[in-house]
Amino acid sequence: MENIKQYVQENKERFLQELIELLKIPSVSADSAYAHDVIMTAEMVKSSLEKAGCDFVELCETPGYPIVYGEKIIDKNLPTVLVYGHYDVQPADPVELWTSPPFEPVIKTTDIHPEGAIFARGACDDKGQMYMHVKAFEYMIATNTLPCNVKFMIEGEEEVGSKSLGWFVERNQEKLANDVILISDTGMISNTQPSITTGLRGLSYVEVEVTGPNRDLHSGLYGGAVANPINILTKMIASLHDENNHITIPGFYDNVEELSVEERAEMAKAPFSLEKYKNALAIEDVHGETGYVTNERNSIRPTLDVNGIWGGYTGEGAKTVIASKAFAKISMRLVPNQDWEDITELFKNHFESIAPKSVKVVVKPHHGGQGYVTPIDSVGYRAANKAYTETFGVPAIPVRSGGSIPIVSLFEKELKSKTILMGFGLDSDAIHSPNEHFGVFNYLKGIETIPLFYKYFTEMNK
Amino acid sequence: MENIKQYVQENKERFLQELIELLKIPSVSADSAYAHDVIMTAEMVKSSLEKAGCDFVELCETPGYPIVYGEKIIDKNLPTVLVYGHYDVQPADPVELWTSPPFEPVIKTTDIHPEGAIFARGACDDKGQMYMHVKAFEYMIATNTLPCNVKFMIEGEEEVGSKSLGWFVERNQEKLANDVILISDTGMISNTQPSITTGLRGLSYVEVEVTGPNRDLHSGLYGGAVANPINILTKMIASLHDENNHITIPGFYDNVEELSVEERAEMAKAPFSLEKYKNALAIEDVHGETGYVTNERNSIRPTLDVNGIWGGYTGEGAKTVIASKAFAKISMRLVPNQDWEDITELFKNHFESIAPKSVKVVVKPHHGGQGYVTPIDSVGYRAANKAYTETFGVPAIPVRSGGSIPIVSLFEKELKSKTILMGFGLDSDAIHSPNEHFGVFNYLKGIETIPLFYKYFTEMNK
Repeated sequence: MENIKQYVQENKERFLQELIELLKIPSVSADSAYAHDVIMTAEMVKSSLEKAGCDFVELCETPGYPIVYGEKIIDKNLPTVLVYGHYDVQPADPVELWTSPPFEPVIKTTDIHPEGAIFARGACDDKGQMYMHVKAFEYMIATNTLPCNVKFMIEGEEEVGSKSLGWFVERNQEKLANDVILISDTGMISNTQPSITTGLRGLSYVEVEVTGPNRDLHSGLYGGAVANPINILTKMIASLHDENNHITIPGFYDNVEELSVEERAEMAKAPFSLEKYKNALAIEDVHGETGYVTNERNSIRPTLDVNGIWGGYTGEGAKTVIASKAFAKISMRLVPNQDWEDITELFKNHFESIAPKSVKVVVKPHHGGQGYVTPIDSVGYRAANKAYTETFGVPAIPVRSGGSIPIVSLFEKELKSKTILMGFGLDSDAIHSPNEHFGVFNYLKGIETIPLFYKYFTEMNK
Repeated sequence: MENIKQYVQENKERFLQELIELLKIPSVSADSAYAHDVIMTAEMVKSSLEKAGCDFVELCETPGYPIVYGEKIIDKNLPTVLVYGHYDVQPADPVELWTSPPFEPVIKTTDIHPEGAIFARGACDDKGQMYMHVKAFEYMIATNTLPCNVKFMIEGEEEVGSKSLGWFVERNQEKLANDVILISDTGMISNTQPSITTGLRGLSYVEVEVTGPNRDLHSGLYGGAVANPINILTKMIASLHDENNHITIPGFYDNVEELSVEERAEMAKAPFSLEKYKNALAIEDVHGETGYVTNERNSIRPTLDVNGIWGGYTGEGAKTVIASKAFAKISMRLVPNQDWEDITELFKNHFESIAPKSVKVVVKPHHGGQGYVTPIDSVGYRAANKAYTETFGVPAIPVRSGGSIPIVSLFEKELKSKTILMGFGLDSDAIHSPNEHFGVFNYLKGIETIPLFYKYFTEMNK
C-alpha cells in the first residue's frame, strides 16, 4: 500500500485543517453550558462521514447527546468493522494553565514532536484519533481499496460515562452487528515503539457531601465544639488508604485478579525509566501501593483518587468560618473481575459507615464501567499488530493501560465481538490536562496504519 | 437617666434608618474588589461622628484602609474613654443561602427577636454594635450629659487581621491616650441575661499549598502511581487531630493555661442547654476535645479548623483528573499565654515535616493575634456591670468567648489600658454566616446602656 503514504502527503494540509476546524468547537459534555457546541460537533462529524463516502449517515437521538452512525456496506458476505470514537471532550479548566486557548488549535513543535503537534482540548482524546478513521476511510473509498464493510458509531458522552451509548447499543444489536470493533482512544509507548492496549481498568466515580451544622458558623464562637465538615471529610478520605496505600474498603480487593510472576515479568520488559518519569512530572518521588512498581500501580492494580474537593471559604484573603458542607469527587480505577456497581455499593456503605454521628453524609454514585482484557491471539489483534509492524518497522508490544473505556466491556456483552485498541497517542500528550496535544506524526501515521488493519483483518478472515 | 429611654423612642426610626444606610455599602475588606466601598463606608462613619458632636474628626491614612478618628475633649482632668469598632465586614458568600440580599438590609421578626431584627452583612459584626456608640454619644451631646472625654477609633481591617491598626496604634500612643477602652464587638447570653466578655481567644490563620505533579494528570494513566495532592492534603490535615481531638502539633499545648476546678465550676453556672444548642444547628451530636464540655471547648481550649479547602475539578459533572495542586485555609484559635507567632511557626514546621517526599508543601502565614483575659474587679468592669444591671434589671455574668479580637492585647501593650467588652449581640445572630442579623431590641438597648457606662465610670474614677 505505498500509495497511502503518497495520499497522506498530498492531503496532509487538508487533513490537519479539517481536524483543526473540529477542535475549534468546545464540545464539553460535562458542562450543560456547552450543550449547543456538543450538538454542532455531532453535525460536523456526520457531514465528514458523508463526504468521506458513507452510503448512509444519521444522528441517532438518545436520552442524552446524539450518536453519529454511518455505514458503507459493500458485501454482506465480507467481514464488518465497527469503528467507535467520541466527539465530546473533557472540560478545559484550569484554563489559565494553557499556553494557548484550548479551543483555538495551534501547531507547535516539542522535543517529542519535532514535526509539530496540534495543541487543543480533544486534539488526542478523542477528536484527533477518531478523525484518523474518517480520513483512512476516505482514502479507501477514494482509491477503491475498502476490502470489507465498515460502520461508524461516534458518541458524545464518553467523558461523562457513555450512559446514552449503553442505552443505544442495547437497542441496536442488529444494526451494529460486526466482526470486530476498532477504537483509537488509547496511547502507545513511543513514536518508535508502537503498542496495543490489551487491558483497561474499570471505573467507579462518586460524589460525596458531608454536612455539619445547618449553616456556616463563626469559627471562634463554635470552633472546637461542633464537627467541622471539612476536617471530618479529610479524616474520612484519609482513612480510605492504609500506611501501605492499600484501599481499606472492606471487600474492595475480593475479586482482584492477581497476575502471575511470569505475567509481571513480561510486563517489566516494556521500556520504562523511573528517572525520566519523575523528571517529566517534576516530582522527587513516586507514590503508590507497597509491593508494586509504577507500571503495575497504574495498570493492573485498582486505585482510589480524589478528583476534586471543595468547601468553606476559598476566595481571596481570610474568612474565619466553619462551613456547613464539604464536598469531594472521588473515582476508583478497577481491574478486571471487579464489578463497578458492586464496588460503588461497597464504597457507599463503607463511607457512610465511617461518618461520625456529628455529621450527615450523602454518597451520590456518578458513573462507572467494567475493566477489560483482550487476548493477543485473536484475528483482530494479529491484524493490528501486522499493520503496526509494517508502518513502524517493529512489532507492537501488548500493554495494559490504566485508563478506562467503560463501553468496551459492554460491547463484548451486547455485540459479542472483541475490541481492538489501536491507539496512536502518547502519555505525554496531556489528555485531560492543560495543553493537550496530538503529534502531527501520530495523526498521519494513524491514517496510514488503519487501512492496513482493514486489509489484513479481511485477508485473515478468508 | 430616664430621658435616654425617651430619646431613643423618639429617634428610633432615624437610628434604624441611619444604620440601614451604613449597611447598604458592601465594605468587604477581604476582597479588593470592594476597596471603593470600604473607603465610602469610612467617609460615612466620619460624617456621622461630626454630626453627632465630635470637635475633631479625621480619616487617618495607613498602609491599608483608613482609620476613622474622632474626639470630644471636655476637660483634660476628666477620664477619657476610647471607643473602638470596625466598619469593615466579612465576605457575604455563600450568597445563595441568604434569604434576602446581604447588602439590602430588611427588618424581619424571628422567634428570638419578636420586635424585629435587621438582616444584613455587618448588622451585628460590627456596624450595628459600633453605631450604637455613635448614637449614645449623640444623646450625651444633645442633652449635655457627656461626663468625660471620648475618643473614637473605627478601623476597616478587623476582618483581615487589623494589620494597619497595629501600625497606627504603635505610632499614636499620645493621641490615643485613654483610661479605658470600650468595645462592642462581642455577644451576651440572651436578651434577658446580659454578660460581659472577660476572655478572648487568640488566632493564627495560615494557608497551605500542596503540589504534586507539575500539571493536572489523567487519573487513569497516572492514578495509583503518583502522589495525588488532594489525597495527601487530606492525610496531612487528618493527622493534625488525634482520636481524642487533641491537636498533634508538637509543643502546641506547652503554654496553654489550665483552669482550676473552681474556675470550671464557675463557668458551668452559665445557663446552657445542649439540646437547644444541637437543635439550633440541626446536629445529632457535638464534636470536640475529650475531657471538656461544649462551653469549654469553644472558649478556654485552643482549636484547629479548616476554614476552606479546594483542589481539582469542582464543576458540574465528572472529570477524571489528578490535580497538580491542592489548597486549604486553616485557622487555630488560641488561649491566653499561647503566642500566635510561636504557634504559627510550630504549625509551619510541623506541617512541612509531615509532607511525604512525593509532594512539595508551602505554608503561608496569613494573620493572627494574641488571646486576652480581663479582670472583673477593674473600675471599667464594675461600671459596665452597673450599667447593664440598670437597663436589664439583672447583673451581667462574666463569660470567656471563643472569638478573637486580636487588637485587644495590643491595646493593653501599647496604650497601657484595659478593654471592656460590652457586647449586645447574640450567638444566634449568625455573624460570619448567611443571614447575619442584629435585634432591634439589642441595638436600642445598647444605645440606652452605653451612656450609663460613661456615667458610672466617671463617678467611680472620682
